Amino acid sequence: MKFTISKEAFLSALQQVQHVVSSRTTLPILSNVLLRAQNGRLELSTTDLDVSIAGSVEAEVETEGATTLPARRLATIVRELPSDEVDVSVDEKNVAHIRSGPSYFKVMGLAHDEFPPLPVFSEAKEFRIEQRVLRECLRKTSYAISTDETRYVLNGIFCAFKDSMMTMVATDGRRLAMVEQELEFPQSQEVDIIIPTKAVNEVQRLLDDEGELIIKISAGQIGFDLGNYFLTSKLIEGNYPNYRQVIPGESRERIALEREPLLRTLVRVSLLLSDKSNSVKLHFSQDNVEVVANSPDVGEARESVAIAYKGPEMVIAFNPEFMMAPLRNLASDEVYLHLIDDISPGVLRSGSNFLYVLMPMRVNS
Amino acid sequence: MKFTISKEAFLSALQQVQHVVSSRTTLPILSNVLLRAQNGRLELSTTDLDVSIAGSVEAEVETEGATTLPARRLATIVRELPSDEVDVSVDEKNVAHIRSGPSYFKVMGLAHDEFPPLPVFSEAKEFRIEQRVLRECLRKTSYAISTDETRYVLNGIFCAFKDSMMTMVATDGRRLAMVEQELEFPQSQEVDIIIPTKAVNEVQRLLDDEGELIIKISAGQIGFDLGNYFLTSKLIEGNYPNYRQVIPGESRERIALEREPLLRTLVRVSLLLSDKSNSVKLHFSQDNVEVVANSPDVGEARESVAIAYKGPEMVIAFNPEFMMAPLRNLASDEVYLHLIDDISPGVLRSGSNFLYVLMPMRVNS
Repeated sequence: MKFTISKEAFLSALQQVQHVVSSRTTLPILSNVLLRAQNGRLELSTTDLDVSIAGSVEAEVETEGATTLPARRLATIVRELPSDEVDVSVDEKNVAHIRSGPSYFKVMGLAHDEFPPLPVFSEAKEFRIEQRVLRECLRKTSYAISTDETRYVLNGIFCAFKDSMMTMVATDGRRLAMVEQELEFPQSQEVDIIIPTKAVNEVQRLLDDEGELIIKISAGQIGFDLGNYFLTSKLIEGNYPNYRQVIPGESRERIALEREPLLRTLVRVSLLLSDKSNSVKLHFSQDNVEVVANSPDVGEARESVAIAYKGPEMVIAFNPEFMMAPLRNLASDEVYLHLIDDISPGVLRSGSNFLYVLMPMRVNS
Repeated sequence: MKFTISKEAFLSALQQVQHVVSSRTTLPILSNVLLRAQNGRLELSTTDLDVSIAGSVEAEVETEGATTLPARRLATIVRELPSDEVDVSVDEKNVAHIRSGPSYFKVMGLAHDEFPPLPVFSEAKEFRIEQRVLRECLRKTSYAISTDETRYVLNGIFCAFKDSMMTMVATDGRRLAMVEQELEFPQSQEVDIIIPTKAVNEVQRLLDDEGELIIKISAGQIGFDLGNYFLTSKLIEGNYPNYRQVIPGESRERIALEREPLLRTLVRVSLLLSDKSNSVKLHFSQDNVEVVANSPDVGEARESVAIAYKGPEMVIAFNPEFMMAPLRNLASDEVYLHLIDDISPGVLRSGSNFLYVLMPMRVNS
């Protein structure tokens, strides 16, 4: 196997695929990137057995062939190479000889036939969607994914394709984020899946502002075909909880709030929290909300924000991190907080398709 | 105590002094910054009992007084304040009331008379030096300070004022960096001291490109008077080893090397090192040096650099980190490597006043 490739193209492809490689793996070949040179291209693939990613870049292929090389080390070497062009030749013992300007590197590889086969998608359900739209949907929900490994069905985004709608939900039991996106697909394609966190993070990294992608779903696995890269992942098996039942019904108050200023206020007031006291109180009164944090041994912070509020006085407490997370990940100028009373869940809405349910905390004092 | 201050000025002063504050301290008041408002200025001081720093900024003082407040928390609060102006008033219970725009913070403080007194410099020896010059001297030596706490006299920079010369030395026993700087002072001022690492780091942070400072040395302590800030530190007591005896005498070869390209070559070749193999070999031959790294289970890297070398063939091995450290911290285009043979220490020189002794490693093969 022998090819010449642009340093920048090689590096960029290596950096995209190396993310999947786990730093601690018992199987040495999983630290490696599979390289295959053929038809004027170099194909690169990595896998951790759950998530895989494959991509390809243009290369001047002199001798076709395949091998595997340590992914992280290869990326570090290519990044530091002194010349814009890189010559790679791999001998029959999978030893790579890398030359660039005055530099010569010899790197020990492993045979390509030991590399685990990548999943194949036959008879998959396919959904075509704009990359920008998918990225927005993931951004608005992914922060609410549970990290509690004992509740493995919550360690991902629930995604339902039903009634020409793609619905995404993430929750950790204390807050829930949901986004609904219209999407055209035949009824025969309807399906519910749970996409694991690692796949969510990897696809967010790959998604671009422009262009489309095709989501492919077949037995127990999902593929994201972005054209230049193909990301695949096992799906989480199990039943996602019935999230519809935690969304409160009709609210009493619907309060318009400026997103960015509210976020800044919460950031500031949260500075006075401590390990012992981790809630901020929102005190609603005529045309005003006062945001208050109180830690007996540290101090207190309070800030008033003028709002259009005509309802009865009400004090409701939230975990400020959980309140700030959606505000950081939304883009709209305004959000709406829907409240029933001080012990019922609050609902934050933005646009017509985003909803966030937030459990209140007990108010002491 | 009551004052109004510009947010930016307050923040910048807090950030300069808060570095000294240790994050884990058994004495709560050491987490605090001493604030004193008087004569149209706010004075700020912090200490960890070894190193102290004091500074002051302009403030509109309405009521003079003093208190202490948690340094890190105060800095975080001031950074986030929404308005350019900050009102601070502190009551007789050392509770601070901080107001800025719509924000109000209450922060619990501690009485100022519990704050440890800062060192006083009476009958100190004084040395006037340009800030830029001191910064250069510290930069060229400080990376070689030993971090081995069992050899506490090496946990700082040895600094001798003698014969109109300031000499700074740092070593960890495997390499030694030395810089000599001409400086005018009367013979009666001659003194040898060891400045501890934390003081070295703090003063490097404060030093500017312009202006002078006064170094003050009195019994067991040093002060750096920068005008706007005054940094003080205990000195390390003990005898610094006789470093002159590790500097090799006459060398056989004096090899001119381009600093930046040599550094890049070492960075690249070092990529093929592993835990088991941590030396790079320099193979000198007629007009050439080949830099080689070799790790049996990982691979090999080699790079040739054209140099003016006329001596006999020679292979000498160094720890690449120790060879790269001075190259990173020097500014000259060229450095000179002085060698005797493959088992004697090498000496790296730059300009007329910098010298770095580097022990070779055993060459295997």
